Parts: sequence; C-alpha cells; structure tokens
Amino acid sequence: MYAERKVPGGLEGDVQQDELKTAGIVESLRSLDTQGSSASQLDAIEPALSPADLPARCRKAFLRHMIGQLPDTVQNRIRALRQNQLQQVRIAEQFFREVYELERRFYGQSCALFDARRDILDGVLEPPLQTEISWPDDALPLDLESNEELRQLVGQLPPVPTDTLGIPRFWLTVFRNVPQLSELVQDHDEPLLECLQDVRLGYEQDSYTVTFQFRPNTFLHDSSLLLTKRYFLQHSADQDYPFQFEGPEIVRCEGCHIHWRDGSNLTLRTVQSRRRGRARSVPKVMPRESFFRFFAPPQALDLSLADEKTKLILGNDFEVGFLLRTQIVPKAVLFYTGDLVDNVNEAPTDNGSVSSENIESEQLP
Amino acid sequence: MYAERKVPGGLEGDVQQDELKTAGIVESLRSLDTQGSSASQLDAIEPALSPADLPARCRKAFLRHMIGQLPDTVQNRIRALRQNQLQQVRIAEQFFREVYELERRFYGQSCALFDARRDILDGVLEPPLQTEISWPDDALPLDLESNEELRQLVGQLPPVPTDTLGIPRFWLTVFRNVPQLSELVQDHDEPLLECLQDVRLGYEQDSYTVTFQFRPNTFLHDSSLLLTKRYFLQHSADQDYPFQFEGPEIVRCEGCHIHWRDGSNLTLRTVQSRRRGRARSVPKVMPRESFFRFFAPPQALDLSLADEKTKLILGNDFEVGFLLRTQIVPKAVLFYTGDLVDNVNEAPTDNGSVSSENIESEQLP
Repeated sequence: MYAERKVPGGLEGDVQQDELKTAGIVESLRSLDTQGSSASQLDAIEPALSPADLPARCRKAFLRHMIGQLPDTVQNRIRALRQNQLQQVRIAEQFFREVYELERRFYGQSCALFDARRDILDGVLEPPLQTEISWPDDALPLDLESNEELRQLVGQLPPVPTDTLGIPRFWLTVFRNVPQLSELVQDHDEPLLECLQDVRLGYEQDSYTVTFQFRPNTFLHDSSLLLTKRYFLQHSADQDYPFQFEGPEIVRCEGCHIHWRDGSNLTLRTVQSRRRGRARSVPKVMPRESFFRFFAPPQALDLSLADEKTKLILGNDFEVGFLLRTQIVPKAVLFYTGDLVDNVNEAPTDNGSVSSENIESEQLP
Repeated sequence: MYAERKVPGGLEGDVQQDELKTAGIVESLRSLDTQGSSASQLDAIEPALSPADLPARCRKAFLRHMIGQLPDTVQNRIRALRQNQLQQVRIAEQFFREVYELERRFYGQSCALFDARRDILDGVLEPPLQTEISWPDDALPLDLESNEELRQLVGQLPPVPTDTLGIPRFWLTVFRNVPQLSELVQDHDEPLLECLQDVRLGYEQDSYTVTFQFRPNTFLHDSSLLLTKRYFLQHSADQDYPFQFEGPEIVRCEGCHIHWRDGSNLTLRTVQSRRRGRARSVPKVMPRESFFRFFAPPQALDLSLADEKTKLILGNDFEVGFLLRTQIVPKAVLFYTGDLVDNVNEAPTDNGSVSSENIESEQLP
C-alpha cells in the first residue's frame, strides 16, 4: 500500500524511457532560442563514459577498486560514512514501523465499508438505485472471432436468474482474474470458492492474518468455516544486508487446520489401483493440487536455512500474502469489474501504452 | 521511501517466478506422504482456463461483457460497490497524506546525520579511526582483460594525494554511478559538480525542494551557490482515474535562475561561425547539453494539457526528482561505495541472481 506514483500515467515503460531520454535532449536544446540554431544543426554530443554504463556487478568491482586506491585517511572517512548510514537504517526501521501502524489504523477506518461490501455481496443489503452512469458499454468491443480462449470463457458464463440475491461468484471471479491467485485455483475448488463470503485482514504488531469466511457448505465442517493464513513480519533490517532494507518483510507464514466433511477433502483424490496378481482394484488416496493447499504451507522457522525449494514455494506464498493485504482485500471490486487488471500476461504492444503499466486502471465516466 | 519488500532476497525476477510456480506444484504434492506416490507418478494437472490467462485489455472486455449479461438488479449492486470503492479512495488519500507527513518528520530526525556526512565530505570533521573491518577487498576481482570500458574508467581515475581533505569528487561520483543522473551529466559539467558540497531536501506540505549547495567556484556567482529544484505534489486521486491512486504524485516542478560568471555558462558554447562572403569569423552562442539544464525544466501548469514531448521530458524529470528524494539524498554513500547499484544496464545472466534485483545490496561483513 506504500508505493508512491511519481510519473504521469503511462510513462513508466522501458521503451518510453528511451524515448524520454532522446526527446529530453532534443527538446531542452530547442527550448533555447539562440540565433536560429535548431537541434538538428547541433553536433551530436557523445555522452562521457561513466560507471553508470557498466553492469551492476562490474560497477561494484570498479568502485571497490577506486576506493582501494584512495589514501588510508580517505578510506577511513568512507568507512565512517558507512557507519553513519547504518544509523540511517535504524531511523528507517522506525519510520516503516510507524507506516505499518498507520496502515493498521486506516484499515480500521475502512471496516464499515468492507461490512457494506459483504452485505451487498450476500444480498443482506439492497443498495438504492444507482443514478450515476456506469462505465461505458461500447468502449471495449469483444473480439470473439480472433480469440478462442475468450470465446470459450464467454461460453462458460453461468446464467444468472433475475431474482438472484447479492452478487454470485464474486470472490471466485476476483480470484480468477488475478494471475497469482488464479494459478492456485483448480476446477474442483470452484464449488467451494463459490461459498466464499468475505476476505478480511487482522493486523497484529508483528504479523497480519488473512481470514476467509465461508457460508455453510457441503465441503467444510461447520467448525471450519473461517480459514486463516497468518504472515509474520520482520520490522528490522536484515543483519547481513542492512542497506537493502525497504520496510517490513514477510519472513514466515502459518496456515490452519481444515476440518473437511467425510470424503470432501479437495486436496485429495481417490483412484482405483489394481495391484499385480489381484483381481479386485483397491481405492487409493492420492494428493491433488488445490487452492486449499494454501492453508498448509511448508514449515520453515528460519527461511535462510531452508532448502532452495522451500524458499521458492514460500517466496511465492509471501507474494500472494502481500497481494491479498495490499490489493485484493482493499480493492476486490476493481478486480471483479476489470477496473484494475494486472497485465503480467500482456504481450508488448507497438504503442507501448498498455504494457507500460503494471496495473491498468479504467477511466471512470 | 514507501516500497515494502515482501519476498526473500533474489526471488523477484520473472525467470524465478516461473521456477516458483513449477516447484510450488511439485513440492506441495511431495509434501503429502500418501502410499509412496511421488510427484512424477501423478498425472499432470491441466489448469483450468480462467480470465487471468487473457491479456489485460481482453480480460477487461470479457468482464464488461460478463457484467452486461447480469440482471439489472445485480448490475445495480456492482455499481453500488464501485461507489463504495470510491469512498475507499478517499480514505487512501488521507492515509498517504499522513505517510508523507511521517516521511517529513523522519527526514528531520536524519538531519544531524546528514550534517555529519557533509562535514566529513568537506574535511571539516575528521572521524576517529574506524576499527570495524570494512567490506572484503578480494570479493569482486576486476576483470580488466575482457572489459574495455572498465579499463578506460580505471585509467581515468584521478590520483588523490595523501593529505587530501575530506572525500574529493563525492557527489560527482554518486551522480556518475546512477544511470538516470549520469545521463544528465556532461564532461564539461564535471569541474563544477566537483564543487557540489551537499544535496538536501526541504519538505513543505504540497511540495518538496531539492537543494544543491556549491562551494565558491569560478563558474557560479557567489549569489548563486545554492541551486534549487522544487517538486509539487498532488495528494488527491486523479479525478478521471481515481482507482489508479497509489499515493501522492509529482505534477509540476520549478527550477531556479542560475547566475553564471561571465563566459562560464555551462549550458552554452561559443563557436566561430564564418558567414558567406565575409572574411572574419563571428563568435556565435549555441545551446549545449548540460546537467544544469535540470534547473530550467519546460513549463507546464497542467501536464495533461501539455504536448507529448513536454510530457516525456517532465516524466523523466519527475523520475529524477523522486529518485533524489527517496534514494540519493538519504543513501548517497551507498551509491558511492557500490553497496547499492541499480542494474538497469545488466544483461540477463544464466543464474538469474543478479538480474532479479533492481537495486542490489552488498553483504556487510
């Protein structure tokens, strides 16, 4: 939630960065009106060679070499400045602690709005007739001809009767629209995710918990309708890499036990296995991919000591935990409507206007 | 300063994301010990088709279509949720306002450290002998053989006498190490940038000012030793794109007049121009690229009304202004030592460990 935008919309892509550089030079020369000279008449200026032109690792080696050549007195001053910087890190730690407390406080302020959202989704609260003109219908024509996947998805849309309560399949649709979440969801998870009623956060000082509230259903025992995933934060800089500190980091997570109804465990499947020499097949329980594995992450108390695979799995899990807290819970409806679409699957386009943004926002009429 | 890290070091690259996904599926299956089954024995599970698989623009069109097919009552509920979300944006605006105030307050706390930094750089303050072992010398060997640019840069290093005061060329070296700044600096700017004594920030409520303090020199009039660049912030969401709001945005900037000593204006050059039919050449003043053009940005009160070129130039300028505030001023020494190197020039490597990080931090011994 802390990312600050600093550039006018659509100017952040790499391609456009290059354009910026070129245009910047040309234009700033043109802005001077000196005796009719124009940019095209000027000699091209060859930029000086600088360490910035070296690849990062090479630049680092160069700078180490540069410092090594300096007199001892100067090197001592640089070491002192590095200690000075470590004290800055301590101040930054305190800053980010307070930012987290602010986030926690503001989350509390939003809860009435989240309650209203849940009640509208559930059909408990019927909103008055909205008079504002909603987003334009014809702005984005469906190109069914050229896109087989799109045709298939449109064909799969379930009919919704006019007397439907609330908004059916809301959270499932949100999950299906966000790539990092969608890849966790399997077809067989859908009937249960249709019963997902609300996703909320609980902030503690050194952790936060994402709660998934389900309506009574045929999969989960009634004692297990609230599933939780807790993410533990480290608010201090890493001892080995203090200068990399940019705010609290998720270092660990904890799922919850799921009490499935008999035969309804979505993370397992039963196959008939025929052993050699036996006539009858025997039922065999096998693991199966499922969104609900999210609640049983691999355990690692100290991630730096974990094996590479666990690091990779948890790295992905932590990304999802971060996304749930900063994007999905606070802005769910925008992922349902397509007002926010993250475009990780976007192919680069010629004009660059789509690919330049990570999360794209639709104009509000 | 608000970016929060959420993933263990080195896991953020795209390549590794793919590894995460694969490994995640395999490992979570393996973590279940069911009757000796192993991941390789399991049928590959084909993930279900979902809107997340569509490119962003196409997904948006699909969702608009999906919503258009819903009964009017359901569509009305979605419109109500969108209004609910607009109220969230108002809360987010207030949150980011307070984060900015926090940043401003913590900047004040850091000023004593910035004063000490300036005094050490200037030779006014001689730090005590640093006893901690500094960063390892042999960790990064210089590969002069295979890199011509590196050889050239090493050859250009100026000798530094043992009785040197402070740390010479500190800010120039920092600027030369950061690509976005380095591309603004020309060879002829270097003598003046060697006189740069300090770079600081001044926070106001709706703007901040970057100040560049110079020692007396032969280029700038003594009345012009403090150059300033002011960035104006918009703390409220864009009216047309409220859902894109992620914190205050730079919307305008203001440079300052530079009072050059006669004939010392680095942004101009004089050429001898010979006119047709005349024997004597006439001196002619021409514009020239220079870092100091940074203090004369093109004017645009409303960026959305500016022409495309101005938008591009200012987009780049705003990036630099953001970088100065969040990285360069608070962490200058790390860009001098190479503890932080941003690797925009890095070619992808086989192991991916370098390219996966945008700013790379060196281990502290």
